[in-house]
Amino acid sequence: MPLTSYTALQTAFAADIRGAANRAHIGKIYRASMEFLAKAQREPLRSLIPNKEYFAFRMGTKLSRPVNAALFVKRTGEWDKLDNALQRKSLSKLNPDQVTRIIYSVAMAFCCFIDLTKDRDQKTPGTFFEYLIGHLFASHLGVNPITRIQVLNLDMETWLPTDFIFDLGKDRPKFHLPIKLSTRERIIQVFAHQRVIDGVFGTERFLGTPVILAETKRSVARRDVTEICVPDQCRVYQLHMAQLKRLYYLDVPATYEKLNHVFPPIVVKSFGHFFFEADTLSA
Amino acid sequence: MPLTSYTALQTAFAADIRGAANRAHIGKIYRASMEFLAKAQREPLRSLIPNKEYFAFRMGTKLSRPVNAALFVKRTGEWDKLDNALQRKSLSKLNPDQVTRIIYSVAMAFCCFIDLTKDRDQKTPGTFFEYLIGHLFASHLGVNPITRIQVLNLDMETWLPTDFIFDLGKDRPKFHLPIKLSTRERIIQVFAHQRVIDGVFGTERFLGTPVILAETKRSVARRDVTEICVPDQCRVYQLHMAQLKRLYYLDVPATYEKLNHVFPPIVVKSFGHFFFEADTLSA
Repeated sequence: MPLTSYTALQTAFAADIRGAANRAHIGKIYRASMEFLAKAQREPLRSLIPNKEYFAFRMGTKLSRPVNAALFVKRTGEWDKLDNALQRKSLSKLNPDQVTRIIYSVAMAFCCFIDLTKDRDQKTPGTFFEYLIGHLFASHLGVNPITRIQVLNLDMETWLPTDFIFDLGKDRPKFHLPIKLSTRERIIQVFAHQRVIDGVFGTERFLGTPVILAETKRSVARRDVTEICVPDQCRVYQLHMAQLKRLYYLDVPATYEKLNHVFPPIVVKSFGHFFFEADTLSA
Repeated sequence: MPLTSYTALQTAFAADIRGAANRAHIGKIYRASMEFLAKAQREPLRSLIPNKEYFAFRMGTKLSRPVNAALFVKRTGEWDKLDNALQRKSLSKLNPDQVTRIIYSVAMAFCCFIDLTKDRDQKTPGTFFEYLIGHLFASHLGVNPITRIQVLNLDMETWLPTDFIFDLGKDRPKFHLPIKLSTRERIIQVFAHQRVIDGVFGTERFLGTPVILAETKRSVARRDVTEICVPDQCRVYQLHMAQLKRLYYLDVPATYEKLNHVFPPIVVKSFGHFFFEADTLSA
């Protein structure tokens, strides 16, 4: 059962976020989810996004969220490749697209399992995605994150709760890592948190590198899949609120991809790239 | 039926937001909601907030959101006093606390009607509250709001969707009016929108005056009422993100009240004060 391993992950997660034990739990959750999904039907959806195909898993009357057909890998053995690479601390046998597909599939398999077995449960998929990305980021950087930072300011002393913060040590930038299943029109929050951190600690002390699963939405009545994006607003936020170093997606939205080509650009990439550029980002 | 008048308000609202026709619809919704609630029971709740008492309306198995006993007026005739005062453009016979109680009661009566007749409907109460506050603000200022502003910036031209914006004309500040039933830990959004507007148009061009109903929360299992507030974070946002001119509440949270007394202060007031200080704010 995926939920047995998920409970084990929940219990173990915080003790050593980057630890191999967490990755072992994630692997078990993934395999159990795929075993469950093997019994479900795959129903094609009508994609309104150019050059992307989506399907949903069906079981009885329940239909899962949309799954990107090109990103969802069939064999769970792919995960073992990433697992081994992280264990060996060398991803040289993999490439960014492959890593993106593996992580997308692990995230999506568990999300769809929850979609087919629970009612309106958004919290469990969201928390699992935080565990998954938080662990992979920590494992690759070799550092455990913190989730709050101290604000000392003349007569004021307070703690600011944050998304994951990775401190690589003196004279190196720190990472600020918001993790979301989707942001839609709430993407302003990601820029807002970056703004506060820039304001409190100074610009460029923290690199903002949010990781988001996708911006897809399936219309309830019909089988249509769209992406809810606000590219013009993102440009205004990047100019007037705070600068994100990267906007990582597992399923990069078509309209956000174009933000790479405006000036000044917002660098939007699939998350697999992180594992091949992390050293240069933090140099 | 409250919903008949609500549908009429929805249809009419945008045509002339400050118009007396909207206030007539609001009055009908309020009276119909109170007639409905007269058939419901009032069930005391256990308030964990010092010096505040709350009850909920009950009908069958359904229980409404928490209602502040001291703010919820019994007689619908109170609304007519505010209605007449706005018509005459003189609130001299009223005081801020009285105005706050009237508006609180109108908002809460319809919210509780929806709580007792619908399942999980958060959208209708939220939209009604936007209509109510948007109309009252517009009526008092004598100006209709807009909900998007144009960003012109060298080679960039785009529209930024906003909450209500009131333009009082050249050489006077404009109002930026976010309207929310509650914000809880999402209050960063209010500061974030102000930051974007300050960034695009310059500081102090727009006065940020959010109006929020309450921050109360009833625990589902028990009958406890608490307020979800993040005062320390608000201070950090006010210092490092953007300055709000006022934080107006209908039911001012106890811990936010204290923000008036820290330095630098955030001015938190009950919304009734707006009608007596709007001239000096925009001077």
